[in-house]
Amino acid sequence: MPNYKLSYFDVRALAEPARLIFALFDVPFEDHRVSVEEWNDMKEKTPYGQLPVLEVDGVEIGQSMSITRYLARKFGIAGKSPEEEAIADSIVDQYRDFIFSFRQFTSATFYGKDAEHINKVRNEVVKPARDLFLGIINKILDKSQSGYLVGNSLTWADIVIADNLTSLLKNGFVDFAKEKKLGEFYNKIHSIPKIKEYVAKRKGTNI
Amino acid sequence: MPNYKLSYFDVRALAEPARLIFALFDVPFEDHRVSVEEWNDMKEKTPYGQLPVLEVDGVEIGQSMSITRYLARKFGIAGKSPEEEAIADSIVDQYRDFIFSFRQFTSATFYGKDAEHINKVRNEVVKPARDLFLGIINKILDKSQSGYLVGNSLTWADIVIADNLTSLLKNGFVDFAKEKKLGEFYNKIHSIPKIKEYVAKRKGTNI
Repeated sequence: MPNYKLSYFDVRALAEPARLIFALFDVPFEDHRVSVEEWNDMKEKTPYGQLPVLEVDGVEIGQSMSITRYLARKFGIAGKSPEEEAIADSIVDQYRDFIFSFRQFTSATFYGKDAEHINKVRNEVVKPARDLFLGIINKILDKSQSGYLVGNSLTWADIVIADNLTSLLKNGFVDFAKEKKLGEFYNKIHSIPKIKEYVAKRKGTNI
Repeated sequence: MPNYKLSYFDVRALAEPARLIFALFDVPFEDHRVSVEEWNDMKEKTPYGQLPVLEVDGVEIGQSMSITRYLARKFGIAGKSPEEEAIADSIVDQYRDFIFSFRQFTSATFYGKDAEHINKVRNEVVKPARDLFLGIINKILDKSQSGYLVGNSLTWADIVIADNLTSLLKNGFVDFAKEKKLGEFYNKIHSIPKIKEYVAKRKGTNI
């Protein structure tokens, strides 16, 4: 088993899908939580001046979704065929398109911007992007026979989307009383025993 | 050989890396160029209400970089190891981060916005994002022994970045007289015989 070291800030956000995959497959890894002070010294040494970074026996991989795909492929949840893999990738790309907007909210929260600014971002940036994104996810779930987003088994796309729903839920962007299909999907993924066990004891940050 | 149909607007932009991969491997595909009128009728039927879409024997794949990765994997230029694949993915993710800004310029051009608006986007949005993005690409090329972005052979990341440099060049965002390393890289990829042959006869749109 290689040595894995995942460096990220002390929040869920972009690193949590990778952490969930490690938990799901019971794979030990160093969960390096980087403070803002530490980050200032570390930034220049990372591949892209960004976190998260995954180190695998000394090889450094940047970009959260490239890291998550790498682990998904390694542990067998990238999709059962090349076409399923591409569809899982494309769902994650939809998520990436959405978080370009959502990150304006999470970073305003992270850096303690004032309530007026945060509300403006909430209503004018995030809500329209959320409607588009969750519309796509709902449409996929409507057609799904298995309750999973791709084919008839779990893929990393399920983990990425379900974890993002945690953030949307914690910040008042989704209401499962109204969005029943999304709620069922969220519960399905969070009922997987290893995920449930990890989520119960993790630091459940809002972002 | 499966039947491939790639649907996109009549520009290079998000579909060109896939077209370049088809050209590189001499794989026939239907290059479906969608007019704005046709798009209005077609939009609802696409997986995500977006183009490009690749159809492979009836299976529809959305999201440009998921399509391009799918073809790269199929034709053997996704990377020579799981780690190389992840690093190629992460470079493409950097490109995706950049084109979130760059697309504000290309769509303003595509939809014929006025010169003042286009210049504002050019200077305030694209240029800072470009500096960050090309800084990363330059740093990768500085360390490369082969002249390729990943390992010692061509990957799809080279094709994506080299094609994006075409767009930056055509729109005055890069000057190879000043950016010699980028120019060498651009020429290296565009000197590959099958790519050179395709580029010489394609419709070389500005975006």
